[in-house]
Amino acid sequence: MTKEKKLDLPTLPEGYVLSTLSSQDYDNGALQVLAQLTTVGDVSRENFNKFVDLQLTPEYNTIVIRNKSEIVVGIATLLLETKLIHGYSKVGHIEDVAVESRERGTNLGRYMIRYLCNLAISCGCYKVILDCDLENVDFYKKCGLDERGIEMEYR
Amino acid sequence: MTKEKKLDLPTLPEGYVLSTLSSQDYDNGALQVLAQLTTVGDVSRENFNKFVDLQLTPEYNTIVIRNKSEIVVGIATLLLETKLIHGYSKVGHIEDVAVESRERGTNLGRYMIRYLCNLAISCGCYKVILDCDLENVDFYKKCGLDERGIEMEYR
Repeated sequence: MTKEKKLDLPTLPEGYVLSTLSSQDYDNGALQVLAQLTTVGDVSRENFNKFVDLQLTPEYNTIVIRNKSEIVVGIATLLLETKLIHGYSKVGHIEDVAVESRERGTNLGRYMIRYLCNLAISCGCYKVILDCDLENVDFYKKCGLDERGIEMEYR
Repeated sequence: MTKEKKLDLPTLPEGYVLSTLSSQDYDNGALQVLAQLTTVGDVSRENFNKFVDLQLTPEYNTIVIRNKSEIVVGIATLLLETKLIHGYSKVGHIEDVAVESRERGTNLGRYMIRYLCNLAISCGCYKVILDCDLENVDFYKKCGLDERGIEMEYR
């Protein structure tokens, strides 16, 4: 991957800022935005802070977008996996992408996906992958990704 | 997930042993088996050992199956991801599953997949996922997994 291939970022609404997850986001809506994506359940402040501490390791890269009032309106994680293959390279996994429903249509999702793809490139990943439902394929294509394979799961 | 749901492991051929990846596997075929799956490229002994050291972190769990001669005939990785969702839970990602071509049909792949699903359960994962090509869906279904979603990629 070359710098030329970096994805263009759309413009964020005025006053909106992308940042890494921090402990104050516990009180400012991070879990409420995630709850619009999937089951969040009980997450204590202690466990939230443990997750914030994981951001100090190379693997975890959770970003948030905060609005003018510093409320979280978007959240997503890039998990960096070191691999033996491709010459001891890395793959980026984009996980748990959620946007506040009242903010849909303002490019926050596309902004986060492209930001994380670019971050993965700059961290040495040879590819970035994510899994999604069939109905979200078109959204991710607009972000710059291609359909690749099938996600299998065991619960 | 309950212990009752643990997947049955098939029988390994006599003398075959499942183990965690170790530095001696560099000389005993680990990279050659991976090269039957995908591009491995240049992996120095130093970088191989760095990857072995990652196995000391909770995230990386790479297993090998060695035959009677202690040659690697199978390799796979379970990457454990801590998540805020599902009550600060974990998801297991199965990655880079490769079996020596001369050993196909001896259940080594199915053994590794089921072993890693069970390991993920015992580590507290609420689900285990992997991405595969369409032609491998039936194999993973036989291992106990279900089709779930679409893998998207950016290169």
